[in-house]
Amino acid sequence: MKGGVFYGKGIRELKDEEPDLYTLAESLSNVCYDGQVLDYKTQKLIAIGIEASKSDARAIKQQMISTMQELGATKEEIMDVLRVVLITSGMPAFNKAVKILNSI
Amino acid sequence: MKGGVFYGKGIRELKDEEPDLYTLAESLSNVCYDGQVLDYKTQKLIAIGIEASKSDARAIKQQMISTMQELGATKEEIMDVLRVVLITSGMPAFNKAVKILNSI
Amino acid sequence: MKGGVFYGKGIRELKDEEPDLYTLAESLSNVCYDGQVLDYKTQKLIAIGIEASKSDARAIKQQMISTMQELGATKEEIMDVLRVVLITSGMPAFNKAVKILNSI
Amino acid sequence: MKGGVFYGKGIRELKDEEPDLYTLAESLSNVCYDGQVLDYKTQKLIAIGIEASKSDARAIKQQMISTMQELGATKEEIMDVLRVVLITSGMPAFNKAVKILNSI
Amino acid sequence: MKGGVFYGKGIRELKDEEPDLYTLAESLSNVCYDGQVLDYKTQKLIAIGIEASKSDARAIKQQMISTMQELGATKEEIMDVLRVVLITSGMPAFNKAVKILNSI
Amino acid sequence: MKGGVFYGKGIRELKDEEPDLYTLAESLSNVCYDGQVLDYKTQKLIAIGIEASKSDARAIKQQMISTMQELGATKEEIMDVLRVVLITSGMPAFNKAVKILNSI
Repeated sequence: MKGGVFYGKGIRELKDEEPDLYTLAESLSNVCYDGQVLDYKTQKLIAIGIEASKSDARAIKQQMISTMQELGATKEEIMDVLRVVLITSGMPAFNKAVKILNSI
Repeated sequence: MKGGVFYGKGIRELKDEEPDLYTLAESLSNVCYDGQVLDYKTQKLIAIGIEASKSDARAIKQQMISTMQELGATKEEIMDVLRVVLITSGMPAFNKAVKILNSI
Repeated sequence: MKGGVFYGKGIRELKDEEPDLYTLAESLSNVCYDGQVLDYKTQKLIAIGIEASKSDARAIKQQMISTMQELGATKEEIMDVLRVVLITSGMPAFNKAVKILNSI
Repeated sequence: MKGGVFYGKGIRELKDEEPDLYTLAESLSNVCYDGQVLDYKTQKLIAIGIEASKSDARAIKQQMISTMQELGATKEEIMDVLRVVLITSGMPAFNKAVKILNSI
Repeated sequence: MKGGVFYGKGIRELKDEEPDLYTLAESLSNVCYDGQVLDYKTQKLIAIGIEASKSDARAIKQQMISTMQELGATKEEIMDVLRVVLITSGMPAFNKAVKILNSI
Repeated sequence: MKGGVFYGKGIRELKDEEPDLYTLAESLSNVCYDGQVLDYKTQKLIAIGIEASKSDARAIKQQMISTMQELGATKEEIMDVLRVVLITSGMPAFNKAVKILNSI
């Protein structure tokens, strides 16, 4: 999300009950994804790489889907991100992320 | 490294004593950083994001230096990577990576 | 658990087959949660923060439920723990834990 | 920090060069450490637990020092936090944090 | 797998679409599990310990099943691996892995 | 350590000030490293693999030294452990551990 709707259900649920945290989440998203020289899509691909390295299935899937839907990232681009996951974080994290990518 | 010299001292030291592992490290580097659609520099920026999320000081510094020296990445590009680290991995990991970037 | 029943199914299953490990798990729980100055509830809130930072869904849920049921921790107290998770560990870990908290 | 000076050198260095990120870091600190029911000191103790679980020496030390200096946390309170680190994250993380605490 | 079929579905799916990555995965498996002095089973037990420390349920289960089926590892041997997980990585990771082991 | 002296300075320092934690650390060490079927040396090699995957330099070095000194583990055996680290956890963790091993 950046100027849109949060993909994370937990964050969306904060809107009414914890408005200060919701506003902070919006600031985080707006400032962090407002690269000075890198474009938004490249930053989102970096986020996919980081999430895949952490092996958190749901977060990986959300990052992949939002980057494909919002920004037109292709499966080939994401697979190139996962190549970096393989060398930096090992085969189980890579295997998991490939399986998630293929399931989308 | 890709078709060059490994920045990691541990890997370089394998060349004589464990040649099968050294050859494997070369294959890993050559295949993983041979993106089909993303260029090498974008992949190295992703690697910086992943290493920064893991808070391993030496690996962060090596990735940053090799990406700046080999591929002309600028401090501004790397700071945009670290913006993604802030939102995905929190302030201590971000703080550490910013400090390393500023020290280079 | 402290002087009670383990919430973790894996630990409970050790009781008959690996009694030395079960006894060790009891000692771990009894000694670690026997703070000299902090009370048990504060220590359990710290455990929730640590588990949430690791993004392990089942462990997060178990820690939250046991702290709410055994010690009367409120949703508001746990949300304050998760605020610390947001700043120290980033938005995906925070989002996941908020969703789990809201589902209880 | 909350309404004060950041202990993290990386963050402080952003003030002039990346003012949007510096302002975001201030918001993160102000909102996350503004618990609705838990007090600031309890939240900082939780942050120590989370950092200790991640085994990042410098971040652990900074959290410990700032909590002791700003909020008068005692060594005994922090040791009770580390008890939770032992049970949730194992002996190497615990050993490292105890050594850091003893060195302060 | 070593000279066999990959247990990871993600890797298997690469065979047709990303043959360079599939070949790399085979090299990784063949070289890394070709210990000079430790036998394959000991190395697989080490892999179980590492995966259990990371708390990734599916990867833990795959490593356990492949080590039991391919190499005749017993439940007792794997429990001895998990003892090391308890001391090095804490009770939640241990609890999770014990539960997975008991479910096989 | 098992029936000996702790290599971790943090643990040793607890002996006088926090005797309940020191006794617990002894129990952890005695029970976890008392494998029913695997011998102590194999368990220590597993601990090296787990520590290397976490990239904590000091803990890696301590585990390596204690396993070599107490149990006569060879550099070749530890390198076979690190092969498993490469496939499960990626090249930066592997590189770091190899460098530490070579420095001993």
